[in-house]
Amino acid sequence: MNLILLRPEEIRDQEASFNDHRAEHLRAVLKSRPGDTIRVGIINGLIGAALILQLDQTGARLRLASCRTAPPPPTAVDLILALPRPLILKRVLAQAAALGVKRIMLINANRVEKSFFRSSQLGPEQIETHLRQGLEQAVDTRLPQVSIHPRFRPFVEDELPRLLPDYQGGLVAHPEAPQTIGEINPAPGRRLLAVGPEGGWVDFEIERFQTQGFIPFSLGPRILRVDTAVPVLLAQLELLAGLTPPSG
Amino acid sequence: MNLILLRPEEIRDQEASFNDHRAEHLRAVLKSRPGDTIRVGIINGLIGAALILQLDQTGARLRLASCRTAPPPPTAVDLILALPRPLILKRVLAQAAALGVKRIMLINANRVEKSFFRSSQLGPEQIETHLRQGLEQAVDTRLPQVSIHPRFRPFVEDELPRLLPDYQGGLVAHPEAPQTIGEINPAPGRRLLAVGPEGGWVDFEIERFQTQGFIPFSLGPRILRVDTAVPVLLAQLELLAGLTPPSG
Repeated sequence: MNLILLRPEEIRDQEASFNDHRAEHLRAVLKSRPGDTIRVGIINGLIGAALILQLDQTGARLRLASCRTAPPPPTAVDLILALPRPLILKRVLAQAAALGVKRIMLINANRVEKSFFRSSQLGPEQIETHLRQGLEQAVDTRLPQVSIHPRFRPFVEDELPRLLPDYQGGLVAHPEAPQTIGEINPAPGRRLLAVGPEGGWVDFEIERFQTQGFIPFSLGPRILRVDTAVPVLLAQLELLAGLTPPSG
Repeated sequence: MNLILLRPEEIRDQEASFNDHRAEHLRAVLKSRPGDTIRVGIINGLIGAALILQLDQTGARLRLASCRTAPPPPTAVDLILALPRPLILKRVLAQAAALGVKRIMLINANRVEKSFFRSSQLGPEQIETHLRQGLEQAVDTRLPQVSIHPRFRPFVEDELPRLLPDYQGGLVAHPEAPQTIGEINPAPGRRLLAVGPEGGWVDFEIERFQTQGFIPFSLGPRILRVDTAVPVLLAQLELLAGLTPPSG
């Protein structure tokens, strides 16, 4: 945890009190004491410093000193993710948040196990916990939006067309695609990236994405688990966006 | 698990028997039966098919049909990693193996907790288990070499100079470096990549790496945990190696 995240409603008269994992982190990991200054961020707001007024077994009380630093810019990629199994979902949400993704759509697919949609990890509080973990690691404050879409076809055929005008187009990971992302070398711009379930998308799903203008690409000869594939792909798109001169 | 890995010494007269996580995977996840053909790989050897002769609570017995496919090419990057805490180490070993790294040096650094070197995860069997997990995921057979270096200075000053002739030079991740990896855009070639502990390398360590010709680079404004940073950096170096025309 590289910053303590505060909700705006926790702050009153420039002070905030809490007694949860954040207080525990201050006590046990940072071994902070009253009088120390620590880095704090306000959810969806600015980053700055706070003075520890009190820190003991009853919790922590901070006084905000100055919060004037903007969070780092978001990545230009939003994620469509076939819902992974709960343990992997936790990791991917934290990683995506750490890497600056600001919108994550969890969707159904033929090879997603139906039981995954009943996981307790999909509760709004659980999702926020994993996202905050990523933000606290990466020193960011902007909480990604996560939405859940339990039916593939209505998502791709009805919802996706309404989203697409916000993007320079989409990319869909597919082991059988002829080109890698480096070979496609997409022009910079805001992108949607669709990553499939273990075992991949079925042909019908790839066709639906292609109908919406998504370009299939391969990750190369290696089969990566989604919690490795997501950071790999976000990193490569981020790098390409910085390397390629803007087109048009 | 996308292939069943066999040790050469497990194979006799083209047959192999086992009753461990592999048999469990065939039974519980793949729901295989005798008569099915599955994908197998021989450690440090070829990939091919095997026929299940027997599969029950006493284990699995396979007959190798043909093993003629070469494993995917390794990545051109070897890793120097400040020893992370045990839970993260497991993940990073599996991820690095899945991404095709073939040499991993686990070293000490000022901000590595001394207790990490006493972790049971550093036993050769534990290390091999995590590496195999990555290979089984990525459909690779070549087991990475892992070495442990509990003293920073002898490693960097004595061992590193002997290794460096095998490489086009090294890169060292350092939050305060002025350039990102995309801005450096290193020429393709075999590289050593050094990734520090939580909290980063101390100045003395960066200086030692620089004395050995390592180029410091920053990951950008976000602080990434090592199990996110490693796939991010390997992916970016792999992409740059494929994009840049060879120099010299």
